[in-house]
Amino acid sequence: MTRVQDVYPDNRLVLREVGLRDGLQLVKAFPSTTAKQRWIRDEYAAGVRHFEVGSFLPAKTFPQFADVRDIIRTVAALPGAHGVALALNERGVDEALASGVAEVASVVSATEEHSQANANRSRDSAIANIKRLCELRDASAHRPLVNAAISMALGCSIVGPVDPDEVIRLAEKCYEAGVDMVAIADTVGYAGPKQVGELTREVVRIAGSKPVCVHLHDTRGMGIANASAALDAGARVLDGSLGGLGGCPFAPGATGNVVFEDLVFLCESKGFATGIDLQKLVAVRAILRSEMPNESLYGGLARAGLPCATAARAA
Amino acid sequence: MTRVQDVYPDNRLVLREVGLRDGLQLVKAFPSTTAKQRWIRDEYAAGVRHFEVGSFLPAKTFPQFADVRDIIRTVAALPGAHGVALALNERGVDEALASGVAEVASVVSATEEHSQANANRSRDSAIANIKRLCELRDASAHRPLVNAAISMALGCSIVGPVDPDEVIRLAEKCYEAGVDMVAIADTVGYAGPKQVGELTREVVRIAGSKPVCVHLHDTRGMGIANASAALDAGARVLDGSLGGLGGCPFAPGATGNVVFEDLVFLCESKGFATGIDLQKLVAVRAILRSEMPNESLYGGLARAGLPCATAARAA
Repeated sequence: MTRVQDVYPDNRLVLREVGLRDGLQLVKAFPSTTAKQRWIRDEYAAGVRHFEVGSFLPAKTFPQFADVRDIIRTVAALPGAHGVALALNERGVDEALASGVAEVASVVSATEEHSQANANRSRDSAIANIKRLCELRDASAHRPLVNAAISMALGCSIVGPVDPDEVIRLAEKCYEAGVDMVAIADTVGYAGPKQVGELTREVVRIAGSKPVCVHLHDTRGMGIANASAALDAGARVLDGSLGGLGGCPFAPGATGNVVFEDLVFLCESKGFATGIDLQKLVAVRAILRSEMPNESLYGGLARAGLPCATAARAA
Repeated sequence: MTRVQDVYPDNRLVLREVGLRDGLQLVKAFPSTTAKQRWIRDEYAAGVRHFEVGSFLPAKTFPQFADVRDIIRTVAALPGAHGVALALNERGVDEALASGVAEVASVVSATEEHSQANANRSRDSAIANIKRLCELRDASAHRPLVNAAISMALGCSIVGPVDPDEVIRLAEKCYEAGVDMVAIADTVGYAGPKQVGELTREVVRIAGSKPVCVHLHDTRGMGIANASAALDAGARVLDGSLGGLGGCPFAPGATGNVVFEDLVFLCESKGFATGIDLQKLVAVRAILRSEMPNESLYGGLARAGLPCATAARAA
């Protein structure tokens, strides 16, 4: 049984590497299973403990996640490491629960329009799926954590601005359904820090003692500023991907998740101990470069290096 | 006579395009005078009113600024536009004053080590130069504004961390010398938002009714987050360069100033009216691309475009 306070302690910030799932969602070429395993092990050696490992989607359409069970086992074998897998529909939920993964993530769109267009179902149906997931979790032997991401929570690729009250209402429904964590996702990198801070503060308030995750994309260069605002507003879990790997299906040419290594630098600069060695983390980019030579990697830290005193301290 | 409250009104945020000076400081190829003039006029048409136009440095070493007087005249001819030129030594100051530029910027390093290594003079000598500039300003007919930038104010390429009390002490000396504005410069992109916010708040406190400028570099991806923190702390003037043009002599491969167009997006998202049309601004990048094809341009907004509702509003 996985206990939320062990995985996401309330006195500690958690940074999650989501590159192996969100970062690979749209790529044509993807790393081999052994390369993914090196990616995880090398980041683990740098101090990373939380990994989104893949998705339970049809392997025919998403061959990049065909090895999700192997990757789940790779993470599970590392002491203190925690794996998360995405499951979008009933079949995915059943497979995720059967896989023994420590955390299952599901998704509900913030807007009815996006829910119908992207997942061909209503938001109520997505919430029902999350409720079923929580019930199956409660009946399971290993009881994984359940995390519900509210996609498009800060702006929608279809309707534009999103009413924060709608997002709060959905977050309340997710908590009522029994989720251990809600993630607010700026899926298309729509927001600025003011909006991120305001929504995060509200969700943190209704979450009570449960952790709140903020999942940001750097689409318009606001990723790190938004992460800073989320931290100020009480978010305890932030997502990022090494080199900012990933794109956005709704914004061609747009970059993906917040750059993980820059996110670590931000958090350390704000006084949060991440336990992550930045130089070791940046070195892991070599795996992505060699496995996916055509993917753009981003990030200020990789470009410029650590400031001299920090580098001296680390050396 | 230029009045500070006309150029930097205390109820209005000012964003300054510094690409024509800081962005060109290190480039090998640079735009022709007519291309610089188009750059300025097109940004003016987009709503930009404040331009750092060049530097009074020996034309032999810095041919990119040989046309600084022409560029000063170009800006002066545009109603409501304001030009700033950098002058580092006595001769530069004399030439800047003679040029009729509306604002003269000077620099003092935050650390003695950097002052000696970079400018071959003490900080006291730099302050004396600023004092002389203010006295000459007072005796001049057109009385330009004087702005003193404290470089390396948030971290030094030589000694690493910088004591904020030292920066405050230097800012006080600059105000005593008679400057109209102090600029806090994170010359090597060393800081995170917490540090930027704390130092800005202190300088704003001692500045009283005078504006405070924060000049940030995006070296380690913190530029926009730092700008957001500077705004929260009361900075009224922020610098940026179109496409993040520029580098850093102390961090090879590092990017330059904060991306101007992303900075505009940040400010608008925080509720500050910048008066700048983002789509028109982004279009000006074409001039830089054609004049300096080998320079990297950065920026999230240029990559991803405006969020759909904003785009619809603007259209």
